[in-house]
Amino acid sequence: MRRLFILGALALAQLLGVPMSARSDEGMWLVNDPPRQHLQSKYKFDLTDAWLERAMKASVRLNSGGSGGFVSADGLLVTNHHVAADSLQKLSTKARDLYQLGFYAKDRKDELKCPDLEINVLQSIADVTDRVNAAVKDAKDPAAARRAVLSEIEKESLTKTGLRSDVVTLYQGGVYHLYLYKKYTDVRLVFAPEHHIAGFGGDVDNFEYPRHGLDFAFFRAYENDKPIKCEHFFKWSETGPAENDLVFVTGHPGTTNRLETLAKLQHRRDVTLPYTLNRLRNMEAALTQYGDTGPEQRRQAGTALHSAANSRKAFGGQLQGLLDPKILEQKDKAEWALMEPTVKNVKPARADGWHEEKWPDTPWGVIFRVQKTYRTFEKEHALYETGHAFTSDLFAAARHCVRLADELPKKSPDRLREYRDSNLDSLKFALFSPAPVYKELERAKLQASLTFLAETLGGEHKLTLLALGGKNPAQRAAELVESGLYDPVTRKKLVDEPKLLADSKDPMIRLAKAIDPEARTLRKRYETEVEEPERQAYAELAKIRFAAFGQSVAPDATFTLRLAFGVVKGYTVDGDKLPFHTTFGSAFDRAAAMTNREPFELPERWVKGKDKLDPTTPFNFVSTADTIGGNSGSPVLNRAGELVGINFDRNRHGLVRNFVYTEVQARHIAVHSRAVLESLRKLYAADALASELTGK
Amino acid sequence: MRRLFILGALALAQLLGVPMSARSDEGMWLVNDPPRQHLQSKYKFDLTDAWLERAMKASVRLNSGGSGGFVSADGLLVTNHHVAADSLQKLSTKARDLYQLGFYAKDRKDELKCPDLEINVLQSIADVTDRVNAAVKDAKDPAAARRAVLSEIEKESLTKTGLRSDVVTLYQGGVYHLYLYKKYTDVRLVFAPEHHIAGFGGDVDNFEYPRHGLDFAFFRAYENDKPIKCEHFFKWSETGPAENDLVFVTGHPGTTNRLETLAKLQHRRDVTLPYTLNRLRNMEAALTQYGDTGPEQRRQAGTALHSAANSRKAFGGQLQGLLDPKILEQKDKAEWALMEPTVKNVKPARADGWHEEKWPDTPWGVIFRVQKTYRTFEKEHALYETGHAFTSDLFAAARHCVRLADELPKKSPDRLREYRDSNLDSLKFALFSPAPVYKELERAKLQASLTFLAETLGGEHKLTLLALGGKNPAQRAAELVESGLYDPVTRKKLVDEPKLLADSKDPMIRLAKAIDPEARTLRKRYETEVEEPERQAYAELAKIRFAAFGQSVAPDATFTLRLAFGVVKGYTVDGDKLPFHTTFGSAFDRAAAMTNREPFELPERWVKGKDKLDPTTPFNFVSTADTIGGNSGSPVLNRAGELVGINFDRNRHGLVRNFVYTEVQARHIAVHSRAVLESLRKLYAADALASELTGK
Repeated sequence: MRRLFILGALALAQLLGVPMSARSDEGMWLVNDPPRQHLQSKYKFDLTDAWLERAMKASVRLNSGGSGGFVSADGLLVTNHHVAADSLQKLSTKARDLYQLGFYAKDRKDELKCPDLEINVLQSIADVTDRVNAAVKDAKDPAAARRAVLSEIEKESLTKTGLRSDVVTLYQGGVYHLYLYKKYTDVRLVFAPEHHIAGFGGDVDNFEYPRHGLDFAFFRAYENDKPIKCEHFFKWSETGPAENDLVFVTGHPGTTNRLETLAKLQHRRDVTLPYTLNRLRNMEAALTQYGDTGPEQRRQAGTALHSAANSRKAFGGQLQGLLDPKILEQKDKAEWALMEPTVKNVKPARADGWHEEKWPDTPWGVIFRVQKTYRTFEKEHALYETGHAFTSDLFAAARHCVRLADELPKKSPDRLREYRDSNLDSLKFALFSPAPVYKELERAKLQASLTFLAETLGGEHKLTLLALGGKNPAQRAAELVESGLYDPVTRKKLVDEPKLLADSKDPMIRLAKAIDPEARTLRKRYETEVEEPERQAYAELAKIRFAAFGQSVAPDATFTLRLAFGVVKGYTVDGDKLPFHTTFGSAFDRAAAMTNREPFELPERWVKGKDKLDPTTPFNFVSTADTIGGNSGSPVLNRAGELVGINFDRNRHGLVRNFVYTEVQARHIAVHSRAVLESLRKLYAADALASELTGK
Repeated sequence: MRRLFILGALALAQLLGVPMSARSDEGMWLVNDPPRQHLQSKYKFDLTDAWLERAMKASVRLNSGGSGGFVSADGLLVTNHHVAADSLQKLSTKARDLYQLGFYAKDRKDELKCPDLEINVLQSIADVTDRVNAAVKDAKDPAAARRAVLSEIEKESLTKTGLRSDVVTLYQGGVYHLYLYKKYTDVRLVFAPEHHIAGFGGDVDNFEYPRHGLDFAFFRAYENDKPIKCEHFFKWSETGPAENDLVFVTGHPGTTNRLETLAKLQHRRDVTLPYTLNRLRNMEAALTQYGDTGPEQRRQAGTALHSAANSRKAFGGQLQGLLDPKILEQKDKAEWALMEPTVKNVKPARADGWHEEKWPDTPWGVIFRVQKTYRTFEKEHALYETGHAFTSDLFAAARHCVRLADELPKKSPDRLREYRDSNLDSLKFALFSPAPVYKELERAKLQASLTFLAETLGGEHKLTLLALGGKNPAQRAAELVESGLYDPVTRKKLVDEPKLLADSKDPMIRLAKAIDPEARTLRKRYETEVEEPERQAYAELAKIRFAAFGQSVAPDATFTLRLAFGVVKGYTVDGDKLPFHTTFGSAFDRAAAMTNREPFELPERWVKGKDKLDPTTPFNFVSTADTIGGNSGSPVLNRAGELVGINFDRNRHGLVRNFVYTEVQARHIAVHSRAVLESLRKLYAADALASELTGK
């Protein structure tokens, strides 16, 4: 594939996909560096400071992994049903299945406190790149120095402001920003529709369009047992967007890989993604089989299964993208275009074909080399340190108990990053959660993941033998779930009383202790042999890129607040013109065409209430705005900053957005603001909630 | 794990699991070398020649991969519903779903001819070991010489007898027997119940017990458009077995690995099984997702999905077995016990611990080395030559078309084995089958398997690039299904007219041609570097074993007729005593407990007809007899040689039977002969069929 290209400056900019001029709607932009000029020139939109401040302070990040937005002065916030799912599941019991059947608190006193939901609201951003670089420069152990300075900056900020303080690594290490958040840990469930309408079409329609998902839910943030007062919130639009409207998405996209080098993408294609897909299929199969053993088991496995299936489909789409020669060629050309000026004075000056390997001292060469190292222990690292060998809530708790005992005596900058002082409150909030943990579900997940460990490394690999402790995965899983960690009080005691932990005979605690030396060794290798050299190389690359184009390319996504924009419009597939929105009517049609069978079974309320609904009500709509996983629940705003929709998905053409932005067919999909109002009023008897949204 | 054991002769025999004396019911015995003495001493059963001849000539092998037995003088034969499934699916259309809804031909004229079902009935066996060994001895290319002599023996026999003639490799290469079969290719469907009662409990209850599967179906063999006249058939028992009855299973167990060396088993555990499970999960997920897109898609994917799920569960159980240190230790001890006398005069005479590697010139050393070689190209071989990269009926047809053109001009002994003269009729019978092939299902399977190829070998491996032809798997699959091979007439033309094939622009034909050189190279490597040295080593091993014990250990399963025996009895799990049989009543209880939801949804006929049935009718029963996959549909016989059941499964404890026989909890599961009669008479209005069985 590697060839020698000679390119002019314009072609170069095009290849790099740089949205100079009015070319594309690409970009998940930093809210402290938004594309004002581009919006002005292409859309005649004046992005004011006031608009931006509201967008920032009314947008919300949920620790369950999604986005949301405040929509009333009383702390009401909207997100997706599938983002709320984690809390819905944790609030459910055998007798009360909120995830499947939905919930509505007519009175505030009935709102249900979530066991471990934390939300963050961004207040300000500061650039700390120089301080980070200064600390790392000439350090003997750059990885440790980097970890230490980040921890110091965060600790100082927390002490000074009382706000959650996170340093965010942008441009893969090119830039460091300090983000300050207000955080709320008393978040209560207000409303959720039934799963069968929120996730209508299930795995079949996931990442597809036309689509009919009522994928929203409402929470309310509390402080001191009272709803918070929101200075900034989004007004609910009663009309929603029209075709060709400019819209904005404010949310927390999780991960993109657009600025990664070709060697890194090839590594993902050939090593990381195949491993990940195998793992996800293994877990999806285990959860499906567990759920099939009975109704209560199905309920317990519900959200975990949805999550595994969703990831499998998303990563599968990524793999198809990286296996598409056209996409790789595009990346190849762009890389050479950026690389050629850099290497033209380095031997070999020219070559018949090229490869990063030939320039080992350039950032591309370094990143290429790092992948060769990484693949020698990537799976071991993922299994032991990321924990893929131990997919279990109990194990996660046991590891935190064990590691807290080891880490807390150290100074904050010397600890593993997640145990730094500035993160301890959030970590303990999650660790001591009273959310239920189901023994048989734990057993099923552990058997599957321990088997996956053995499949991946072989039956006689030392890490397999250490984890299995002389048993096979089925026997070992059965032994491990005889743990006392189901009870949050026990977890808290083990954290508070080091002696108890030291003497513990709990099988899960013993496992976490037994494997920790190996896990820490792998983590150390990852940090020093992969993460740190990559960060240094990408910092170099960022300089080269900034020198060529300035910061006119947005950084890759980092699960921090970004602003995207686009146009509401349909698209064409195989000659079929797909509309810019679907309707309630087309949802009933789809259910009928699929014989009303799961996952196309409408809730009884919908079947019986069909005649109450206006069938022309817009249901879901699409726009060209640039989103990715993590943007789930993002507010979609119009020019006036009103909420016109709640983003919840991409279509299948958008699955390659991890690597390249395209707007020919790729779209994000959102619930229309009218669909919410219409269903709240006509089907859910939730007029009070609708009135709170519209202010009427 | 490897240690030094010093053992006496008795301990040795025990370790090897040799059923000397009345110790166990282990063994899938050759019908020409049955365990007469053992049956006499343990069960006082006199195995007469007449009994044995009927067992042989009334037992049937189906080319769809299962067993059955004649049960009337008019060629009626019984097998499992899940063995009949392949034909049921091929006989079904969108408007007539025989697999789901069942079928009954009240009149013989309504019996439905299966498009490509062939059955074989064993007539005689002859030992040809000396001739094979003589031909291979001192040959320059032993693999080719072996292939050639097998082909010659088969061809001679076919010419002489007109019977299907297969040389069977026993003891992994220790013994060669020539099997002669009558074969029938006009086989017609007589009766099948609904899938929901045949496979009641689906994947959840598969390989589990207590069990409630009405897993039977009836066919009738025809010749010259008339039912055949059976001299030998099994009389249907109207009572079925009582607890502690001795029973026999006559069927065609597919594969066991009990005589394989430890190195081979470790290779299976660490390489073959992880690859296989990943592949099966990938295919199962693809078929599930395809089936979820609509009712007709669900129908099309039905049997393939069942088959993938069944294999996944079986292989998963095997892996748990090989990861069980107790089982491996048992194998380890047995191997050393057999090995020690052999190596005691070979350096190193003794060692602190031992390993086959230390004795490279022994059979164990050779097999160890072969695995090291094999793992360097095993996946490539499986993907390209076995065809796992191209899971598609169209591809299978294209490959045969392409290879027939290359192979037929050669002399029979020089051809790839499946194209030898003695096999051509059966091969063409399958290749020109008019069974439907569904384009969108083909596309889904191809996309999944091509993706699996890329996941397994990487995006830039030459075999990936060659197969994908400049596209990603999704695009390539869409291109390949635009083939003309759906039509059997086209397939026949391509075989009959070499010029047509040579000029063909059919995308699937072009693919089959393009990959064939690489596929053949891999096959050649497999045959010469793996199969042949293993056969030679196992032949040596067989000699050592025979010298120690005689042929008192049955050979591993080879999908040829075997006789097993055991006792009808329940067992205990976690203190619960499980009964030796279930009843119709307990089936209704199970459905109710599982809220009658799929896969526990009983057919309407059963729900409505419940009161007509005697709830105490025995439904499924278990015995200790030694079975494995391929035994599906095997007749279960009593001392009188009457049919008392139809074997259809093992329980989960029996999944390790590939490697070790155990009878503590391991059982095979059979449909009780009374359950068949009761349901035929009371629910299916099939009195004529019931009367044909009972002769009344």
